[in-house]
Amino acid sequence: MEYNELTELIEKISALLTEKNFRAVKTILDDEMPQDVATLLEELPDKDMPVIFRLLSKEQAADTFVEMSSDSQEMLINVFSDSEIKAIFDEMFVDDTVDIIEEMPASVVKRIISQSDAETRHQINEILQYPKDSAGTIMTVEYVSLKKSWTVSQCFDRIRQTALDKETIYTCYVTDEKRHLIGCVTVKDLLLHDYNDLIADIMETDVLSVETTDDKEAVALQISKYDLNAMPVVDKENRIVGIITVDDVLDVLEEEATEDIAKMAAVTPSSDTYLDQSVWQIWKNRIPWLLILMISATFTGLIINAYEATLSALLFACVPMIMGTGGNAGSQASVTITRSLAINEISPRDVLKVLWKELRVSVSLGLVLACACFAKLYLLDGLAFGNEYTWQICLTVSIALFVTIVIAKLIGCLMPILAKVCRLDPAVVASPFITTIVDILSLVIYCLIAQALLSGGM
Amino acid sequence: MEYNELTELIEKISALLTEKNFRAVKTILDDEMPQDVATLLEELPDKDMPVIFRLLSKEQAADTFVEMSSDSQEMLINVFSDSEIKAIFDEMFVDDTVDIIEEMPASVVKRIISQSDAETRHQINEILQYPKDSAGTIMTVEYVSLKKSWTVSQCFDRIRQTALDKETIYTCYVTDEKRHLIGCVTVKDLLLHDYNDLIADIMETDVLSVETTDDKEAVALQISKYDLNAMPVVDKENRIVGIITVDDVLDVLEEEATEDIAKMAAVTPSSDTYLDQSVWQIWKNRIPWLLILMISATFTGLIINAYEATLSALLFACVPMIMGTGGNAGSQASVTITRSLAINEISPRDVLKVLWKELRVSVSLGLVLACACFAKLYLLDGLAFGNEYTWQICLTVSIALFVTIVIAKLIGCLMPILAKVCRLDPAVVASPFITTIVDILSLVIYCLIAQALLSGGM
Repeated sequence: MEYNELTELIEKISALLTEKNFRAVKTILDDEMPQDVATLLEELPDKDMPVIFRLLSKEQAADTFVEMSSDSQEMLINVFSDSEIKAIFDEMFVDDTVDIIEEMPASVVKRIISQSDAETRHQINEILQYPKDSAGTIMTVEYVSLKKSWTVSQCFDRIRQTALDKETIYTCYVTDEKRHLIGCVTVKDLLLHDYNDLIADIMETDVLSVETTDDKEAVALQISKYDLNAMPVVDKENRIVGIITVDDVLDVLEEEATEDIAKMAAVTPSSDTYLDQSVWQIWKNRIPWLLILMISATFTGLIINAYEATLSALLFACVPMIMGTGGNAGSQASVTITRSLAINEISPRDVLKVLWKELRVSVSLGLVLACACFAKLYLLDGLAFGNEYTWQICLTVSIALFVTIVIAKLIGCLMPILAKVCRLDPAVVASPFITTIVDILSLVIYCLIAQALLSGGM
Repeated sequence: MEYNELTELIEKISALLTEKNFRAVKTILDDEMPQDVATLLEELPDKDMPVIFRLLSKEQAADTFVEMSSDSQEMLINVFSDSEIKAIFDEMFVDDTVDIIEEMPASVVKRIISQSDAETRHQINEILQYPKDSAGTIMTVEYVSLKKSWTVSQCFDRIRQTALDKETIYTCYVTDEKRHLIGCVTVKDLLLHDYNDLIADIMETDVLSVETTDDKEAVALQISKYDLNAMPVVDKENRIVGIITVDDVLDVLEEEATEDIAKMAAVTPSSDTYLDQSVWQIWKNRIPWLLILMISATFTGLIINAYEATLSALLFACVPMIMGTGGNAGSQASVTITRSLAINEISPRDVLKVLWKELRVSVSLGLVLACACFAKLYLLDGLAFGNEYTWQICLTVSIALFVTIVIAKLIGCLMPILAKVCRLDPAVVASPFITTIVDILSLVIYCLIAQALLSGGM
């Protein structure tokens, strides 16, 4: 829904509310997509939210609830009666319930769990026990399981009976009496076969599956790579416990990209949206990085103080330009390599190919930039603006710039690969840390080259 | 497939090839996923590639071909006979053909098109004419269309006849005699109804659709938001011309995230993978940004020269730390806001909320960092290391740091929103440009504060 459509709808609903025409509000909202109803509810004044929410049909209420921010969810739960909580959570898939529970304070969690039946409570507890970011935490426990002795016609009956969510019926899993995964069959396969054909004859027995403890990002990338509709999740004994569907994959990949981007900008990632985070949360996610980077940056000050005798005021003036360009050159390489590693375009075994490529790129980039820098300093700043840039100073600056760019690129491409090999997160080292390392190195290089070329200050 | 599985497979295939046991190679490869066969072929020596490719079954060959890099595709086409080209492209979906054509030189394109039948050629030309990055360029022209007068049973017959790719059958579109989109129905709906029910009675008439010229990223975000299996694409007269499926969405969102990350690191995005790009391409994508940023950074030199009298050596030594911290603080804000804009978490109308949040965050961050900086300079560098950092100098540096952080954060959150309003790309301004602007501003602030507090140099 576009922003102006939303504004229009809000006005319409507000008008109907003042007329107390609740029936009309209900008719309108039951027809909208749950995602849009959630947005709408959150744009309305807080006091109206429970009133309108209670107008929704049971299914629409559950679907809408899942789409709301955790603050709004908590607010609603606090005004709900126990039977209202039960009605909503009974309509929900277990994995959505778990997602909500994970964001709620303990007292709210208790109320939700006390309203679930024993089976659901058991499933919730199982999912809550899977390690963070594992396949188990994002899987859906609702799926269609078939027996290999069934006919196509029996399978259709089974699908009709279960009638689960659209995502979860198009690939069905064939299990033995001990729930071991032995095959899979798509609704398309079923449609293309005769009603009396046996599943044993048409099922695909070579099924890709993942374990509950596998990393969710790796699973998402696999589903995306092989264009699958769903991926079965099995336990250590190859018993199917759930499936991961493509809409979960979309969420995981979007979340992982957002996390990597945050880390590259030296921010601790958060699972909340920006507007949902409090000032305190944002502060907490940013302060450690800024502090560490600031403290390490103060070492540049010590280097400058140490080389005070070597660096004239004119040479000093070029320090920010050299450090800035080195930082930019380094993050170009590191961010590119980090992203390629994240989406499996390259792997650590490509390290030599990457190094050789970056070496050639950096030398050709460095040459052009060094020449441009020499020309700019000598002709513009020196001759035109009358600063005392002799050709010796210009040469010193240009050579230092060249060396800085080459070193920055090589460090920039090596660090993320090294991080990956050491099982650290490449995104964390990708941009700000490399900039700091390059800052310090480039300064030392600059001072050493200045000392060598200008022999003891000019 | 894991890396070691791949290595094993390569060894096995190479051994079989030396024995000239082509039948065994064929049996193995026809069982693997096309994505893995593509990786395998590209890891083998170039001369073996066409030999092995020709062993594949017709369907496996087409599926594998789609997954290969454009360099390998071009190489294969060059050794193929016209009838081989026809065989492979006849098996392919039209949108995949178009993707391949777009990367090929003109002579190859001519050969491919000359082997297609008139209908396909017409479709290819249509798709090629849609604007860059529009929905038309990623849609699939193969989909199931139904008539509203049909019964469920007739629909199943129709699905069986067309038997398209798995992605494209689970949502079917109901059209009138002029191909206008009038409804949609899922295979699940069909399964849940009686065989004699009429489509007119069970179809959903309120169908979300997009136009061929809509931006593909916006469409992908919509499909992801509403958890759809597919989205119909219509022309200006609401006639259905294709559908966009969720696997296209995965590719678009991954590509867009990669592009945004590249832009934030001051690199022109490329649609090729890192290893597929030549040194020259990488150079071309990086040089303009580095040059622009370097030239703008040289202005910091002019500022330093202008304030030479004010800035003592000790004050100079703190310049990189202040500029670096300002840059980091600015990109934390700008990168976070840019990503939130990209995934529609915030929109330009939230500008005041964002500003107010960043103001509070930046003041609290600035206070902590300024205190830490004062303590570090005064106690460690001053008292412990014996540099002559008086409390006046430390205060100057700390105040400048505080002001820099606040300004950096405010510019950092405002610029991407402004870019979005002006229909520019927020990702381009997100990181390096903001760093440069903040560099210059922070330096001026520093010099002015030093001048004011230390009254004419100390």
